[in-house]
Amino acid sequence: MSADLLSASSDDAMFAAVCDHARQAAVLGSIESLLGWDERTMLPVQGGTHRSDQAAALASLVHKQRTDPAQGDRIATLVGSSLAKNGPPAVRATIRILQKDFAKHARLPVQLVQTLAKTAVEAQQAWAAARAESSWQILEPWLVKMFALKAEQGACQRPDLDPYDALMDDYEPGARWQVIAPLFQRLRDQIVPLVQECVASSQRPNDAILKRLFPIADQQRFVREIASRIGFDFQRGRLDTTDHPFCSTIGPDDCRITTRWDEKFLPTALFGVLHEAGHGLYEQGLARQWFGLPQGEAASLGIHESQSRLWENMVGRSPAFWEWCFPLAQQMFPLALADANAAAMQRALLAVRPSLIRVEADEVTYNLHIMLRFSLERELVLGELRVADLPAVWNERFANDFGIRPSSDAEGVLQDIHWSGGLVGYFPTYTLGNMFAAQLMAEAQRQLPDLDGQIANGRFGDLLAWLQRSVHAHGRLLESEPLIEQACQARVSERWLMESLRNRYGPAHGLA
Amino acid sequence: MSADLLSASSDDAMFAAVCDHARQAAVLGSIESLLGWDERTMLPVQGGTHRSDQAAALASLVHKQRTDPAQGDRIATLVGSSLAKNGPPAVRATIRILQKDFAKHARLPVQLVQTLAKTAVEAQQAWAAARAESSWQILEPWLVKMFALKAEQGACQRPDLDPYDALMDDYEPGARWQVIAPLFQRLRDQIVPLVQECVASSQRPNDAILKRLFPIADQQRFVREIASRIGFDFQRGRLDTTDHPFCSTIGPDDCRITTRWDEKFLPTALFGVLHEAGHGLYEQGLARQWFGLPQGEAASLGIHESQSRLWENMVGRSPAFWEWCFPLAQQMFPLALADANAAAMQRALLAVRPSLIRVEADEVTYNLHIMLRFSLERELVLGELRVADLPAVWNERFANDFGIRPSSDAEGVLQDIHWSGGLVGYFPTYTLGNMFAAQLMAEAQRQLPDLDGQIANGRFGDLLAWLQRSVHAHGRLLESEPLIEQACQARVSERWLMESLRNRYGPAHGLA
Repeated sequence: MSADLLSASSDDAMFAAVCDHARQAAVLGSIESLLGWDERTMLPVQGGTHRSDQAAALASLVHKQRTDPAQGDRIATLVGSSLAKNGPPAVRATIRILQKDFAKHARLPVQLVQTLAKTAVEAQQAWAAARAESSWQILEPWLVKMFALKAEQGACQRPDLDPYDALMDDYEPGARWQVIAPLFQRLRDQIVPLVQECVASSQRPNDAILKRLFPIADQQRFVREIASRIGFDFQRGRLDTTDHPFCSTIGPDDCRITTRWDEKFLPTALFGVLHEAGHGLYEQGLARQWFGLPQGEAASLGIHESQSRLWENMVGRSPAFWEWCFPLAQQMFPLALADANAAAMQRALLAVRPSLIRVEADEVTYNLHIMLRFSLERELVLGELRVADLPAVWNERFANDFGIRPSSDAEGVLQDIHWSGGLVGYFPTYTLGNMFAAQLMAEAQRQLPDLDGQIANGRFGDLLAWLQRSVHAHGRLLESEPLIEQACQARVSERWLMESLRNRYGPAHGLA
Repeated sequence: MSADLLSASSDDAMFAAVCDHARQAAVLGSIESLLGWDERTMLPVQGGTHRSDQAAALASLVHKQRTDPAQGDRIATLVGSSLAKNGPPAVRATIRILQKDFAKHARLPVQLVQTLAKTAVEAQQAWAAARAESSWQILEPWLVKMFALKAEQGACQRPDLDPYDALMDDYEPGARWQVIAPLFQRLRDQIVPLVQECVASSQRPNDAILKRLFPIADQQRFVREIASRIGFDFQRGRLDTTDHPFCSTIGPDDCRITTRWDEKFLPTALFGVLHEAGHGLYEQGLARQWFGLPQGEAASLGIHESQSRLWENMVGRSPAFWEWCFPLAQQMFPLALADANAAAMQRALLAVRPSLIRVEADEVTYNLHIMLRFSLERELVLGELRVADLPAVWNERFANDFGIRPSSDAEGVLQDIHWSGGLVGYFPTYTLGNMFAAQLMAEAQRQLPDLDGQIANGRFGDLLAWLQRSVHAHGRLLESEPLIEQACQARVSERWLMESLRNRYGPAHGLA
């Protein structure tokens, strides 16, 4: 064998070893996911203390695996190898991303990782109690502790970045405040007048039809049918019940979504499931053979949210979807929907109404909820706002943005679990997801000219295949911005979201 | 400080460090329990492959923790310390047991531990397929592999013991074939004639009353009420549905039991839950502050089974229990039980009938099922019987013992999950548990003279408190034989089980 071939073969072996190690860390990480899923769906009331011990123990083992110096040495060797320079593009990107990940994890002290894991479990339990009693005092010390820990985490893991960007980068690699803030501002400048027009309209959608009696058992069959129909594979997933719907992946063939049920409001479960199943389709669409490696992992939370929002809003709140779905709904709920029709149903789903609770917000005002949190959490991380002042500032800014004021902290600053769980820098990914979703859907419609006709016939396979090709197949080899630009042949912009909102909400509110 | 005090204080610190380390291993072990529970209750059909990767990854981490040389050094130091000689009895016992555990684990190669964990998951999946199709061929190669692995495990971990004893010792520390075999033989010599008398009787119990319609939703309320009443704490536990009922502890405040339901046979769920809740009461009765240490862990599977069998059979099939329970049952199932009464219900539960399936067997013939498996598995481990010959030998011996012959392997050798899961040496603990249960109940009745009256009034607190004092509080500081002898002031014997069976099943079958 020539020296060149020898070195190439040892590079390949090194690359395989690095991948094995990363996969092993992902296997352990997937056990953490199970601990989290179980905590939110199954854990007995008094099991919380031990669960936080389990989470902390496992977090430190995962961290140890992720920062194993032997892996660091292998990666360093690879980075200098010809594979990193001349290998296939996917291999080069994998090496670059694993190097970045390793360096980030290696900068985090194990003690901090363990404390964060334990504090997240305990603070979320405090949050649940605080919200139940609408008592800010219960949560406040935990948020103080959590924001201090997060600031420390940000400073450790990315000393080269602004502390808020350092945290946001965990959820949206490459996202920077300097870019996101003006993008959001442009969106805001167009959403605020749209909300005002909708609210002022004399032809507002009537959603009484959605508030009839929809027996839970029938809803369960209905939403399972719809989730299956859009492509969610129940052989590789489950649907359970929680107060706060979520999607969690326990393994490449084990994606679990949850929803809540409201007997007197059909959209709660229906759109909860469309949303979470959208996340699930992304997870189930990732390349199984690359589990635990960048090519088999989600690109970012913004891209993840684009998949859920696309199915929930771009599909689920479209006239075409209801052409197909309405007869099915009427068959499942013959009493409630006897006198309804597809157009009335679809229009009923488009009522715009400023409201207090983010997760109950309509699609248009939703983004204002996100922007509020985005600015607050950045100020908290930078120390420009004190946790103690948060409830008052929240209520004041909320009243300013929405024209209404929370009557209690449970309806205000206590409504979200995110900050207690250590998810800081996470909120902006929701509105990024909305923008990506609209942009992807516009491009899918351009490339699949018959798409509306297919959806109106309950055929979702071409759309899903397009998403798999354009988004899922790339894993996280690209960051969200280049990924969207490659899929859509256009720069990321708020333009498509505003078009989609105006095209659906305008007519529903009788706007010109 | 004097030299003596200094050394005492460093011994204490060393003991604390050893305990911390053992607790940490137990925390990781409890995550393994969650993986197992989830696999049996929640896992999507296609999630099995990844679950076996998770189980193997975690098993090797747990093994690493349990065999950490630093812990070995600390234990060795402790064993030579004055604490091990003159410390409090519980401390001395803890040191001795941790030393034994450590040595056993340290003798197991990590590769074997990982292979066992992975094979157990895969073989159990093969077992499920084999049983569903009644196809021995599907299971056979997995059992060949598993018995080879188990023989290797036995030889590694206890080279000082007979290979079967080495495995049995995992489940029933201190149990030896030489002692158990003659004990079982004495029991068999008395059970066989009792079965013959019962079967030959002209006054057999009529169980038609149990085969009426018992709606599942009502059964769910009924069994939860009974489980709560005997003391199972649902704040620290759950009840779920599986084909094969089990009890699994995920943490000191997280004990999960399962049952199955049969709309047309009340005992399935009722006695399933009494049994599993009995296990659960033991787990919930262990000292929380000693979690992960011998003082807070179950003594053995035989002792564990004694707790489940005591509640299931000694309590649940007694006239006193039905005095209390029947009115509740009649209130829950007014249609099915309109014309019934407590005495008829209790008698209906005592029908003796040789049958093919262990888990459906009556209390008397049950032990014959166990003895069959006990002898077969020992011969398999010692190489006296080949896996390939197992189905034929099973059927032949079964026909000999029971006078009936399985019509398919699903009704024969494929019925139990144990061997595919690597549980070899486990079966005898069921019959040991039956004996311990009867002996404990006899002693409880002697020490609590009003016990029957209490049970007839639905008061179970004194009995539970006696079990907590006499059994639960000791953890595994004592092996099962001395534990029973201490609790009952008498040698372990089959005598009490035979008395209990004769006292209940004799009258029910009109025997003299």
